[in-house]
Amino acid sequence: MAGTDHTKQDLSLSLPSGPAIVLVEPQLSENVGSVARAMANFALADLRIVNGRAKASDEKARIFSAGATHVLDAARNFETVEEAIADATLVFATTARERGQAKPVDAPEAAAARALGEITAGGRVAILFGRERTGLENDEVALAARVVTYPVNPTYASLNLGMAVLLMGYEWFKAAAGGAPAFEMPSRARPPTHEETLALFAHLEGELEEGGFFRSADKRASMVRNIRNMIHRMEPSLQDVRTLHGMVAALVDGRPGPKGRGRTYLKPLKDADDVTSGS
Amino acid sequence: MAGTDHTKQDLSLSLPSGPAIVLVEPQLSENVGSVARAMANFALADLRIVNGRAKASDEKARIFSAGATHVLDAARNFETVEEAIADATLVFATTARERGQAKPVDAPEAAAARALGEITAGGRVAILFGRERTGLENDEVALAARVVTYPVNPTYASLNLGMAVLLMGYEWFKAAAGGAPAFEMPSRARPPTHEETLALFAHLEGELEEGGFFRSADKRASMVRNIRNMIHRMEPSLQDVRTLHGMVAALVDGRPGPKGRGRTYLKPLKDADDVTSGS
Repeated sequence: MAGTDHTKQDLSLSLPSGPAIVLVEPQLSENVGSVARAMANFALADLRIVNGRAKASDEKARIFSAGATHVLDAARNFETVEEAIADATLVFATTARERGQAKPVDAPEAAAARALGEITAGGRVAILFGRERTGLENDEVALAARVVTYPVNPTYASLNLGMAVLLMGYEWFKAAAGGAPAFEMPSRARPPTHEETLALFAHLEGELEEGGFFRSADKRASMVRNIRNMIHRMEPSLQDVRTLHGMVAALVDGRPGPKGRGRTYLKPLKDADDVTSGS
Repeated sequence: MAGTDHTKQDLSLSLPSGPAIVLVEPQLSENVGSVARAMANFALADLRIVNGRAKASDEKARIFSAGATHVLDAARNFETVEEAIADATLVFATTARERGQAKPVDAPEAAAARALGEITAGGRVAILFGRERTGLENDEVALAARVVTYPVNPTYASLNLGMAVLLMGYEWFKAAAGGAPAFEMPSRARPPTHEETLALFAHLEGELEEGGFFRSADKRASMVRNIRNMIHRMEPSLQDVRTLHGMVAALVDGRPGPKGRGRTYLKPLKDADDVTSGS
């Protein structure tokens, strides 16, 4: 999906430096590229490759990184897992199946929270991802203090390497950057005051009365309550309240028979000329 | 990563039926395949394609689905977005950039919680995903009640279509299935009783005393406290306690000078023959 905004701040510069992503013997350069892309999405920058047949410098890695070449360019190669994690104070091993090792197991969300705590306290975190087909070997899992596994449908648990890194990066970013969506609902006109809302109710209910909407005085109170609740649930802005006034007026103007009761309901509002519909 | 367990229950059968994933004009069959794979990972089954150049039946979709052909086989094609969402009671539009539309904006986690609430209450949910390059058009976003956007690094916000579906599926699965990891730390030997732990402390501290570890009676109390805390933090099982007894004994046996103070510390334990090291 499109949406990269080059005028915005690169959060990888302001967030705490995230965990190292350590790929153990990746076989396909496409996957290394997808991993780089996923890392860039979530402001991770430290890619380490152990004894990879796939290389960060391969053309296919470039293509699949979709522009995240800064991650590929900074990637480092190691001969062994031990060398790749030598500087880490906390190592996680991702694995899709139980290994019979007495290690605590975290879901990605809990692992991300723990990684953030470790990094905030001055530590360094590395997360191991295994080979595409066979994952990590037991001796590699044994190098880690903790295991990360994903909540997935047990009958279809096979995650692509890029997707496994993506989910871990996503949870890291939620933990480190607070998880707020990239934008909020656009700011609208200010909310109406209680008086402005009541003026809308009076206008609407008056016209409904004229139109014979309330079949009996008996039912009127509960019908009015329902209508008022519907409008409250809409959380209208002042602009929306003006639009509703205009809609009621237009409906009344289209009504057969005598019209033209005037539009005094608009008078209490300032700059009523920016009503967007119906008037 | 490997790990699919065909002996386990397909959670897509026991979870509430999840949101429909609606792809609007997908261009690449590879992406339709990746989407199917991501849906299978998180027990989603309802794939809808609007006016797609890419088809669920294409060979490339099969390959990229990595075996999630049940999702592709059940996919449905529609001419328009309106037809694709006709049965939905709550529609989300995913978008990476603000559209100036006065719609509430959710991060994936909040959207998943809301979708689960809607479905639990008997409603049906659809989530719209736009074209690979250009996303959804504004008129398509306008069909949705709410917008979903992802917390991403603003300077690198471009998510692949399959990855966008993956993250939404992941949050759906966490909400619907509780988010527990697929397995826990293997169950170990029972924890030691307080008496068994104290016997280990007595053994260890006695040998340390013999070896001249406690330099002064003055420091002894705080040094003992530190050691006991280290062992408590290890949360040893009874098996681990036995291993620790064995380790202390082995270290003592290797000590220069008179040895053979016997191993009476093992006597209080039943079946001491399964101590795993050192004895």
